[in-house]
Amino acid sequence: MSETFSHPQIQDGWFREKPTLWPGQAMCLEIEEVLCHEKSLYQDVLIFKSTQYGTVLVLDGVVQCTERDEFSYQEMITHIPMNCHSNPEKVLVIGGGDGGVLREVAKHESVKEIVLCDIDESVIRLSKKYLPGMAIGFDNPKVTVHIGDGFEFLKGKVNSFDIIITDASDPVGPAESLFQVEYFKLMKNALRPGGIISTQGECQWLHLNLITEVQSYCRDIFSVVEYAYTTIPTYPSGQIGFILCSIDDQVNLKKPLRKWSEEEEEKLCRYYNSQIHEAAFILPQFTKNALKKIS
Amino acid sequence: MSETFSHPQIQDGWFREKPTLWPGQAMCLEIEEVLCHEKSLYQDVLIFKSTQYGTVLVLDGVVQCTERDEFSYQEMITHIPMNCHSNPEKVLVIGGGDGGVLREVAKHESVKEIVLCDIDESVIRLSKKYLPGMAIGFDNPKVTVHIGDGFEFLKGKVNSFDIIITDASDPVGPAESLFQVEYFKLMKNALRPGGIISTQGECQWLHLNLITEVQSYCRDIFSVVEYAYTTIPTYPSGQIGFILCSIDDQVNLKKPLRKWSEEEEEKLCRYYNSQIHEAAFILPQFTKNALKKIS
Repeated sequence: MSETFSHPQIQDGWFREKPTLWPGQAMCLEIEEVLCHEKSLYQDVLIFKSTQYGTVLVLDGVVQCTERDEFSYQEMITHIPMNCHSNPEKVLVIGGGDGGVLREVAKHESVKEIVLCDIDESVIRLSKKYLPGMAIGFDNPKVTVHIGDGFEFLKGKVNSFDIIITDASDPVGPAESLFQVEYFKLMKNALRPGGIISTQGECQWLHLNLITEVQSYCRDIFSVVEYAYTTIPTYPSGQIGFILCSIDDQVNLKKPLRKWSEEEEEKLCRYYNSQIHEAAFILPQFTKNALKKIS
Repeated sequence: MSETFSHPQIQDGWFREKPTLWPGQAMCLEIEEVLCHEKSLYQDVLIFKSTQYGTVLVLDGVVQCTERDEFSYQEMITHIPMNCHSNPEKVLVIGGGDGGVLREVAKHESVKEIVLCDIDESVIRLSKKYLPGMAIGFDNPKVTVHIGDGFEFLKGKVNSFDIIITDASDPVGPAESLFQVEYFKLMKNALRPGGIISTQGECQWLHLNLITEVQSYCRDIFSVVEYAYTTIPTYPSGQIGFILCSIDDQVNLKKPLRKWSEEEEEKLCRYYNSQIHEAAFILPQFTKNALKKIS
């Protein structure tokens, strides 16, 4: 680590998360080398090589992904909706500037067109430089990239996508609008018949109130609304959830409609398989109780 | 917090875990008040009230339980084996000096006798003083407490228990022997026909090598060997696993033999329910691959 480098969240060779949305707790990661620190138009971007988790991308002081555990999030937010659709051809990714979701979407042979819209070009540019294992997703010729606000991008889009994946950061800062009811209405309008959305849905141990609130208004907009989760060490409390919705009441999000063979799963995935797809929807009693109250 | 209090892992009002078995990462919890710090015969015992997780018990610098999330661990390590046994009457708990597992065992009406053996009387004494929500487990008249080494306690015990739960800390310090093959052989001998063991089995994200090693020698000792896990924010990487074994090849640990009604689950549990019992055995692809290699 450069001796002259200074960052308010780095001390004695360790990065420490700044707890804003999860007060009273903080994750620390040991740094091998700081690779990059810049202020983009929208956020503070920090990239470092950690001693145990590979390269780490931090936006506004919050870990977005690490090379060691990113596959859990990218695979689960992508393959759950993709494998519940009979023939996903057109896929939209909002956010996801590291490219990891693109990498996963491209594993589905039915896909003809993938559009990514991220507000911050610096995340894409720096991921291509420092996180090639994720940014490889941009190399696919089916991918088109728009730099801009996802909320604005969706306005006027009708009957356009089979799957929309919102790979957003937390609802403070640039991703704030991506947790609002109007955003979910725009996504609904942009879906083709049978369409499914999958969005970063926060952690049941930390933000059960936010989860029930989003679920509540999604139930007014969509025919099918579910919450699933995956484990991931470097997200706060070690897990992250997904809000999954469909406009088609015949869609069962809890069971994959299409399954890879066991050999394909071993080749294509490090976290996802058809059994864990189903298990991801099985909730602990405290979450089950909270979601039952709004039904 | 007392101005004169000092502890090597407390700084600026925050406790920071000392990463030994999980280098390069550390969890921090904000402190409201340090309640107790003493050196017992076996370990360093620290108890503090946190700002967000209630009262926290720390042994040798590692968080053992917090009032906010302990229920996940205590319920899952207990109800999975208990509900797979047709009639658990005699239950042994090794470790578990906070009383939380006792509290959960007592929820099963079939139980006639519960024996707890913990090496460190100070953990029991201080839990009774500072963690009454867990230590309430000691109030049950069915409970007998032995202060002593679990390994030694088991020697010569034959055909004695239906369920043995090992609620141990990590395999350094006083709990080291509780991860060794000889300990599992002693447990096997102490089981009655149809008996089941459930032991703290570490985290698949951190200690997959240890997990496969323990699974490997357990398969030579027991007829049925499984790994399950639960999510819990204040354990490293946000989850902890369990090694579950039975001497009876007719026992299916992955499905509860006995189920509570939905109303009973709501009343008795905050994490466990019969669906999450089954989901706890569904492993991500990377763990599935690792365990397949040893089969």
